[in-house]
Amino acid sequence: MGVPTSHSMPSEETPSLTLEDVTSAAARIRGLVKATPTLRSSVLDAMLGGHQLHFKAECFQTVGAFKARGAANTLAWLRSRGELPDSVVAYSSGNHAQAVAWAGRRFGVAARLFLPASISRVKLQATRSYGAEVVLCADRGEAEARAAEAVAAGAALVPPYDHDQVIAGQGTAALELLDEVGRCDALFAPCGGGGLLSGTVLAAQGRYPDTLVGGGEPLSANDAARSLRAGQIFRWPVAPETIADGARTLSISPRTMAYLARLFALFEIPEDEIVFWTQWLTHLLKVQIEPTAALGMAAAFRWLAGQSSPRKVGVILSGGNMDAETAAAIWARSYLDQPPSFERPLLAKTHG
Amino acid sequence: MGVPTSHSMPSEETPSLTLEDVTSAAARIRGLVKATPTLRSSVLDAMLGGHQLHFKAECFQTVGAFKARGAANTLAWLRSRGELPDSVVAYSSGNHAQAVAWAGRRFGVAARLFLPASISRVKLQATRSYGAEVVLCADRGEAEARAAEAVAAGAALVPPYDHDQVIAGQGTAALELLDEVGRCDALFAPCGGGGLLSGTVLAAQGRYPDTLVGGGEPLSANDAARSLRAGQIFRWPVAPETIADGARTLSISPRTMAYLARLFALFEIPEDEIVFWTQWLTHLLKVQIEPTAALGMAAAFRWLAGQSSPRKVGVILSGGNMDAETAAAIWARSYLDQPPSFERPLLAKTHG
Repeated sequence: MGVPTSHSMPSEETPSLTLEDVTSAAARIRGLVKATPTLRSSVLDAMLGGHQLHFKAECFQTVGAFKARGAANTLAWLRSRGELPDSVVAYSSGNHAQAVAWAGRRFGVAARLFLPASISRVKLQATRSYGAEVVLCADRGEAEARAAEAVAAGAALVPPYDHDQVIAGQGTAALELLDEVGRCDALFAPCGGGGLLSGTVLAAQGRYPDTLVGGGEPLSANDAARSLRAGQIFRWPVAPETIADGARTLSISPRTMAYLARLFALFEIPEDEIVFWTQWLTHLLKVQIEPTAALGMAAAFRWLAGQSSPRKVGVILSGGNMDAETAAAIWARSYLDQPPSFERPLLAKTHG
Repeated sequence: MGVPTSHSMPSEETPSLTLEDVTSAAARIRGLVKATPTLRSSVLDAMLGGHQLHFKAECFQTVGAFKARGAANTLAWLRSRGELPDSVVAYSSGNHAQAVAWAGRRFGVAARLFLPASISRVKLQATRSYGAEVVLCADRGEAEARAAEAVAAGAALVPPYDHDQVIAGQGTAALELLDEVGRCDALFAPCGGGGLLSGTVLAAQGRYPDTLVGGGEPLSANDAARSLRAGQIFRWPVAPETIADGARTLSISPRTMAYLARLFALFEIPEDEIVFWTQWLTHLLKVQIEPTAALGMAAAFRWLAGQSSPRKVGVILSGGNMDAETAAAIWARSYLDQPPSFERPLLAKTHG
């Protein structure tokens, strides 16, 4: 599945990355990206009966999402090899586009971005504000295809997840979290193309081998879960519908699938649970998170529901970029009068 | 206007507080409340042509709003005088109730709160979660009246703003901001009953006498502006309607009016500008703010529009408590495709 780049990166399907790749990435991007804060909510911990939850707030990352880590690491790695190209291309419908636009400017590299025309005006403005060239395409499939054409013509691609240095860069979020709070029983992150979860697996299990790493994926966009169940990659013909727009990837890749195989669980989260946790985390932590960022918490809750002793858990809040239309959809119905609890179903069916 | 308490505080109408009262309050509440972070947005600074904006994020304060400062300082001050009562009462429709409930528990003092029945379920739950007794009243007027009855019967009132130690406590937010970022040309904060602005005046002008302090008040709840214009207090018969629910106070008090007289400006902000800045600050800073917290920025923008050289400005984001219904109202229509700019009217009239 991986789109080859003009700067050939290994594309083998056996996992070759280790913790050292993540620590190298962390050293490489230090000072380029932010060391984001880790947040806690004593109210949430109490609601959940005394578990300890630590939230890595990547909504405060440069460009508003963890994607800056992978993009910065990829360009820094290329530069360290004397292979920094004059220009890069990327396809994305969201945060990866902004990350590549930002990193391109930061490294003095022209960026050309293939984006579906459905991209929100806010994200389009943000991407253009970094000086990137934007090429609007009919849909995500066309954006991927046109990026592949550009690569065939010699352009250098920064893929959204199918790249060792992207994965290593994304892993630095979990590494920072563990450096700050120490060993956790389990770490959770959202699953789109699998880059963030792959990096999280490398960082967490590299540092503390018995750490459980789990993912949350929208039930309506569950290609990763289907792929892991079937043992082969399932690919959507068109981007699946979910409010968690960061998880509307067409498929994972053989590369990320190799790391996702190390997850202890990949929870498939219904849309209303995504909305529920987006509301509650916003309310309790007072941060703006995008719905995709709620997937890790939704997964953590499902795991914690079966735990009989207090657990220490890390949750990666992947980002905070959300247009007003999505925010309106999130807040259209209130879940804040239903505090999260293991004692009853998470979502009461009595209203709505 | 000030409701007398059984622990008689001075109720004179000449301002008697100084910077020292605020620094004493800061020492008194250290470790009880949070030293909240100061946030910046390079994107916003650039949009506004190079001004420097520093945001004091009281949304991360204990109970989600600056109100914890005044409540904690008042009880700590009473305790330091050996006058800590067994129980306290308060009236509020929002953050002050939570602050007194929290501070009561923290100091081992029973709290009885008179709240209008219209209070959101979320705020009601939060207030009760601190163990406070809640008495629901028909409206804010009845809540104030019943609190006054309780005081007449011997209870100790923690007023929402009309109290020297409440004002001194609220001033610690500006003090921390200045300690962190140094002298500012101007500081801005929202105006409800005037306690936060009074404390801000004391802190800012006490530390740097030539600092401008300005306020933002909802145009539809502009009793403070009317009072300052008329030279006498204007009081609403019923709470005015505004999305900035923290500013739905019936009136300022002679005490706060004496400090508000030192403002260089009190800007009256239309509802759509409150919504505009709530959206934009949430989007740029990635924090959850309540609409009241946007009033300071709205005021700052109006002042900056007339400035010909770069200014350094502090803005106090008063809190982040918002129910889902208010969030839905905030996001019902998007302003995020209209970036703030001095070059054209803030709110285009081309859609909606």
